[in-house]
Amino acid sequence: MKKHIVLLPGDGIGTEVTSAAKDVLETIADEFNHTFTFESKDIGGTAIDQHGSPLPQDTIDACRKADAVLLGAVGGPKWDNNPSHLRPEKGLLGIRKELNLFANLRPVQGFSNLLHASPLKREVVENSDMLIVRELTGGLYFGTPSERRNNGSDVVDTLAYSREEIERIIRRAFDAAMLRRKHLTSVDKANVLESSRMWREIVEEIKPEYPEVTVEHMLVDAAAMKLITSPTQFDVIVTENMFGDILSDEASVLTGSLGMLPSASLNEEAFGLYEPVHGSAPDIAGQGIANPLATILSAALMLRHSFRMEDEAKRIECAVSEALNRGYHTGDLNVKDGEQVNTHKMTAVVVELL
Amino acid sequence: MKKHIVLLPGDGIGTEVTSAAKDVLETIADEFNHTFTFESKDIGGTAIDQHGSPLPQDTIDACRKADAVLLGAVGGPKWDNNPSHLRPEKGLLGIRKELNLFANLRPVQGFSNLLHASPLKREVVENSDMLIVRELTGGLYFGTPSERRNNGSDVVDTLAYSREEIERIIRRAFDAAMLRRKHLTSVDKANVLESSRMWREIVEEIKPEYPEVTVEHMLVDAAAMKLITSPTQFDVIVTENMFGDILSDEASVLTGSLGMLPSASLNEEAFGLYEPVHGSAPDIAGQGIANPLATILSAALMLRHSFRMEDEAKRIECAVSEALNRGYHTGDLNVKDGEQVNTHKMTAVVVELL
Ligand SMILES: CC(C)[C@H](C(=O)O)[C@@H](O)C(=O)O
Ligand SMILES: CC(C)[C@H](C(=O)O)[C@@H](O)C(=O)O
Repeated sequence: MKKHIVLLPGDGIGTEVTSAAKDVLETIADEFNHTFTFESKDIGGTAIDQHGSPLPQDTIDACRKADAVLLGAVGGPKWDNNPSHLRPEKGLLGIRKELNLFANLRPVQGFSNLLHASPLKREVVENSDMLIVRELTGGLYFGTPSERRNNGSDVVDTLAYSREEIERIIRRAFDAAMLRRKHLTSVDKANVLESSRMWREIVEEIKPEYPEVTVEHMLVDAAAMKLITSPTQFDVIVTENMFGDILSDEASVLTGSLGMLPSASLNEEAFGLYEPVHGSAPDIAGQGIANPLATILSAALMLRHSFRMEDEAKRIECAVSEALNRGYHTGDLNVKDGEQVNTHKMTAVVVELL
Repeated sequence: MKKHIVLLPGDGIGTEVTSAAKDVLETIADEFNHTFTFESKDIGGTAIDQHGSPLPQDTIDACRKADAVLLGAVGGPKWDNNPSHLRPEKGLLGIRKELNLFANLRPVQGFSNLLHASPLKREVVENSDMLIVRELTGGLYFGTPSERRNNGSDVVDTLAYSREEIERIIRRAFDAAMLRRKHLTSVDKANVLESSRMWREIVEEIKPEYPEVTVEHMLVDAAAMKLITSPTQFDVIVTENMFGDILSDEASVLTGSLGMLPSASLNEEAFGLYEPVHGSAPDIAGQGIANPLATILSAALMLRHSFRMEDEAKRIECAVSEALNRGYHTGDLNVKDGEQVNTHKMTAVVVELL
């Protein structure tokens, strides 16, 4: 198959980790007789510096023509005091909205030889394996009005959803549950928010279409507790944008392997943007020591979700596991008796194992 | 001193735990030569059953005339499918708003002989000691519009704040930090929300009034991570209503002693409503086995914050610690080599130690 991939390295360690993932994708193309073509575009702080905008039109156009997009990370102290339209995050929020990437999938899974780095006790976190499905283009993030009023004496933001927006993300979550352990936890704040009551109603309406899936409603405050006290009780979690932002970051630290977590942001079709969950880590940028595995695993998600290349995706995931099993790791991971390597060597080991 | 206290036992174990706290308050009155008078009023599900409203006017009037209010808990499966104006939680939200209880203080502290029950590793959670200051009468909880639109095809909720509402909670948090380790973490989502940008500006404006306090701004998603990975880095956390709901529940499970956590909800003056952080636990209600310690510790907060009785408050807190040290505990706490007792005995032990 021929596929065209746009790389958005972004800021900080973004360049190093996307380049590592590109090496892996090229090896996969060779092994499986595919043709992957690549093109790099600017986003975030780098795009502000080069083009005066965190999301140049040229970047949007290139992404629209691509079969999938792989992003590194955006942000850094250099741009922290910029006015809000010139902030790196605006590039990320903008590309999600422009490409209608409403479904953010974040699998959280432990690697057994990293579990000792978890802040949780092994017996609490062991065998946890969940998928957080976060609505990504609605809610408080994009609702209007979002403004100061009465000469700055008041402020409002708006949590807005349409029925269609809620339906499509909930269907996506049910579909995902069908491919997993068939348990769906829908998280809301229905005892307070009207939008949550509508969310809960829609989950109940769609439920009969998936008779095999068991459904549980959970309040967001209870979910924040249970993620810690019993992470293994979750299979698929579906929630709105802001709750998803908070809960998915909370979940990302449970297994001690934040540097290993990939994510996919998908539109109605198979098109998607793939990125590691970790940030741009400006403190170690440019040193060649960043952990490329979350981005490499994001590339695997790209193969699975956008290109329907399940075997190729699995091949990458196995190679990553095997590399860790052999003790290879970057400085952010603490693996007993392992060999600490840099980004280049870590990538070479994975490529070797493919 | 003479003080009049309204008890709002509410639902589930609320009756048992408020009655335990009343015993403790009566003992304190005897010991320190105070006169505490008590009056019980309905709220929540019980009030719905008795008066057709989760917050009868008579309850509001009684609270307004009192010097402080002690609440048990509201809610239970019996009322879970009621229409939203007849839900127990409406009573709680209503009384907060009616009495202008804008400052919710939740101290989270470990008890060393309960730490083994924490889901976190001892070395991660040991010595954590934080105070979460949550804005309680604004934001998404009370903003309008909060409604369906276009025949139910759209829904909005509104996150609204006035400058005064933000200023007063931030001042409260700075004041609290001055009495503690003088470090304040202000949590927001300033990279997305206009209300958070205003919140952050106001923190910066007020900061010079408290030159001894070090201030840190943290995004809510990062805070959800750091509460787990490094809980000891926090002293006072201040945040808006919904973020506070999520983060304070997340924090409440860190130390393994949810059944021990008190809270205070205060107005502009010293008046306040005090309640345990745990819920109404309908599964064990009426069995006489509920843990009364969080409510007893809430009564101690009442003495400290509303009545300025610091010695009396400390006396209660020491008695509770001592009771635990001697191994007495209710069934929800798992204390090695201790004696498991019921609500009555647990209370009697604390009274004895006063
Ligand atoms: C950078 C920020 C705007 C973004 C978000 O809140 O969505 C990030 O936290 C994420 O989760 O991808
Ligand atoms: C019962 C509910 C409305 C309430 C809230 O969200 O404020 C509760 O979770 C709390 O934190 O006191």
